[in-house]
Amino acid sequence: MIYNDQLYTSFIKQKIDALEKMTDQDNPYTRIVFSEKFYEARSWLKNEYQKLGLKVSTDEAGNLIGLLNSKTDTDKVVIIGSHIDTVPSGGRFDGIAGVVAALCVAKYINKNDINLPFNLAVYDYLGEELNDWGTSCIGSRGIAGVLNKEILSRKNKSGLVLKEEIDKIGGNSELLNKPLAVTKNILACLELHIEQGKVLEERKIDIGIVRSIPGISRFSINVKGQAGHSGTNLMNQRSDALVTASEIISFVNKLALKLSEKSNQHFVATIGKLNVYPNSAAIIPGLVEMTLDLRATSQIAREEFLNILEKEILLLNKKSSCKTDIKNIAFAPFVEMDKSLIYLFKNTADSLGLSNNIMESGAGHDTAQLSRVAPAGMIFIPCKNGFSHCPEEYAEASDISKGTAVLYKMVTNLADQSSNKT
Amino acid sequence: MIYNDQLYTSFIKQKIDALEKMTDQDNPYTRIVFSEKFYEARSWLKNEYQKLGLKVSTDEAGNLIGLLNSKTDTDKVVIIGSHIDTVPSGGRFDGIAGVVAALCVAKYINKNDINLPFNLAVYDYLGEELNDWGTSCIGSRGIAGVLNKEILSRKNKSGLVLKEEIDKIGGNSELLNKPLAVTKNILACLELHIEQGKVLEERKIDIGIVRSIPGISRFSINVKGQAGHSGTNLMNQRSDALVTASEIISFVNKLALKLSEKSNQHFVATIGKLNVYPNSAAIIPGLVEMTLDLRATSQIAREEFLNILEKEILLLNKKSSCKTDIKNIAFAPFVEMDKSLIYLFKNTADSLGLSNNIMESGAGHDTAQLSRVAPAGMIFIPCKNGFSHCPEEYAEASDISKGTAVLYKMVTNLADQSSNKT
Repeated sequence: MIYNDQLYTSFIKQKIDALEKMTDQDNPYTRIVFSEKFYEARSWLKNEYQKLGLKVSTDEAGNLIGLLNSKTDTDKVVIIGSHIDTVPSGGRFDGIAGVVAALCVAKYINKNDINLPFNLAVYDYLGEELNDWGTSCIGSRGIAGVLNKEILSRKNKSGLVLKEEIDKIGGNSELLNKPLAVTKNILACLELHIEQGKVLEERKIDIGIVRSIPGISRFSINVKGQAGHSGTNLMNQRSDALVTASEIISFVNKLALKLSEKSNQHFVATIGKLNVYPNSAAIIPGLVEMTLDLRATSQIAREEFLNILEKEILLLNKKSSCKTDIKNIAFAPFVEMDKSLIYLFKNTADSLGLSNNIMESGAGHDTAQLSRVAPAGMIFIPCKNGFSHCPEEYAEASDISKGTAVLYKMVTNLADQSSNKT
Repeated sequence: MIYNDQLYTSFIKQKIDALEKMTDQDNPYTRIVFSEKFYEARSWLKNEYQKLGLKVSTDEAGNLIGLLNSKTDTDKVVIIGSHIDTVPSGGRFDGIAGVVAALCVAKYINKNDINLPFNLAVYDYLGEELNDWGTSCIGSRGIAGVLNKEILSRKNKSGLVLKEEIDKIGGNSELLNKPLAVTKNILACLELHIEQGKVLEERKIDIGIVRSIPGISRFSINVKGQAGHSGTNLMNQRSDALVTASEIISFVNKLALKLSEKSNQHFVATIGKLNVYPNSAAIIPGLVEMTLDLRATSQIAREEFLNILEKEILLLNKKSSCKTDIKNIAFAPFVEMDKSLIYLFKNTADSLGLSNNIMESGAGHDTAQLSRVAPAGMIFIPCKNGFSHCPEEYAEASDISKGTAVLYKMVTNLADQSSNKT
């Protein structure tokens, strides 16, 4: 090992321990974007930036930036970062590992007095996780100029408007109608993330280098039946929305299983969110609202799935007295990472003596959004049992530290490349 | 028609209109037991009792009583009443029609200066609808002495203890370990209720006279899977609690449908309440909690259903990686109404020229609990389309008025019977 394992590891451990305390106490680990705990973590991060001598700012999309200015006068920038928000009852590493790694890189670039020919920016991308407004990756979509008016004007269940929340945290939602100015000057966006799968752990590989990020589509599926008394409505007189919803859930699961085996590519479909109305033991469900999350590397498999599902829903609407409708609410396209960055990541990991593997991502990431407007690259580090989006999520600080070393070396390698070019 | 239709109808309309305003505004019609709106409605009812010259009290079980004392010195009592609480997003008539009818009877017994040889008590039974503590019929179970310590000590999701809520509203939960003293003196408990089914409406019958109330069992069914990221967990690696729950819901529905056709008796099974955890679009469901509500007039059909369901759950636990358990949380036995009261109801309705029919109840009622400790009888009046436990629930004031006339005449007939005996 030729990187400073111990110093990195203890820094990373300390920062992750600090962030894990900023959670809804009843529901660890929960730090939803714009929540009180999220604001608390942002204050903490601002302070961390300042302690490292980084210049703090918030961009139009509400991303929190810590900037290490180059001693050379330049507008060029390399961005490293990830996100500090979590899903409800999520983990301590998803996103967080990447922000902490970026802090660590900035710290040692500064401490080791490395003169970079570009500015180095640590980013906490605003609200990467899927939120109440039915979108994800608020900050990185904002950078890429793809947060349209319809999304920005959405209200969540508490009646809060997304754009107003972005403005409150220091953004400027009026200016999000095109890619932000910074995109003209980005040399590279780099992100470290836990794998959220088992491949690296099972094959004992230090670093996964991401080749592609799958397309993610989300659909709202609503089943409307007729609420009524559970005692007086005979079995053959009912329009029970939950019974019809159950048929759809089983169907989605079986179909996704079949397609994932057939296509031999990454294909997953999940109904993770479901609400029953009025949700009382003595009332037949009158309405079920659910969200379908669909991720595919193959556009053909995605379309096949949706065609079959839509046909099934038509059929159900004919044979059942409930009425089901399906509506697309979010879409992120399949993207490939920058090929020269993949190549450089590989060389960097090799040069550090770290085992590595080029692989597909299963999850969506801010880097997928950034890749629309700048060269973008991403690495994974192993996590335990592939657990993620749950409290059991775990990654060893020493594993994050290896990834951090790759990130650090990438920045200096990019500096060398950049200097050679000029 | 030989009863005072118009006076009754306008009184009933006025009181139902007043009560329908006391609802959670966002979620009509919702007046959950112990909620702010419930307290508001109780204050209103106290005032109504006082306006009619009834003596107001709250018994140990938290029932709100308006007493019309006999001019004769007696401990004997005839109870008329129902409940003013609702399910979430329920209706304006379930329970309410019975309380308003009882008010109307007390008003005209008083106004017409009828001298009863017993006290007449109007009851608002506390919390008839299924609540957060997994029980129903709090007040009538309390009278019957069947609210055991385990039930009284239960906490709801907000951490409130049932017995503390009963005490707060004026009850005395320490004294609920046996039937209340009043049960020694009850000559009859009479309840008017909307049918919550379509039989009376379709057959154009004025009055349903209840022969029996079905046994109601409630079970909590929990499915434990493994929460995880919806993008990175392959379809064949998942323990999705919602997929397994869906299989159970479909199974329960199909089995209940089959048994209801086979037994040719009242048999219904409903999963009306279901919560997914953590309930986020990007997380595979790790836990599903649901409640099964089972109502049967046949004990054999009930046991057959439970045996088959338990076998299916064992099978699911073997073949799926999720773990399901089922637990009985509430039980009310099948009961028959007092035969002489059924007979008297029939004669009374006939004498008023009202068409009537002896029938089974589909729903559970306070009167089922009271029948354990006193002669109890019940009548139904028609409601629109059989809708109940939903905002569409509707009954004509003129139909409630016909039932009220039967109730009024029952009280005077009981008085005649009682006088003839002495």
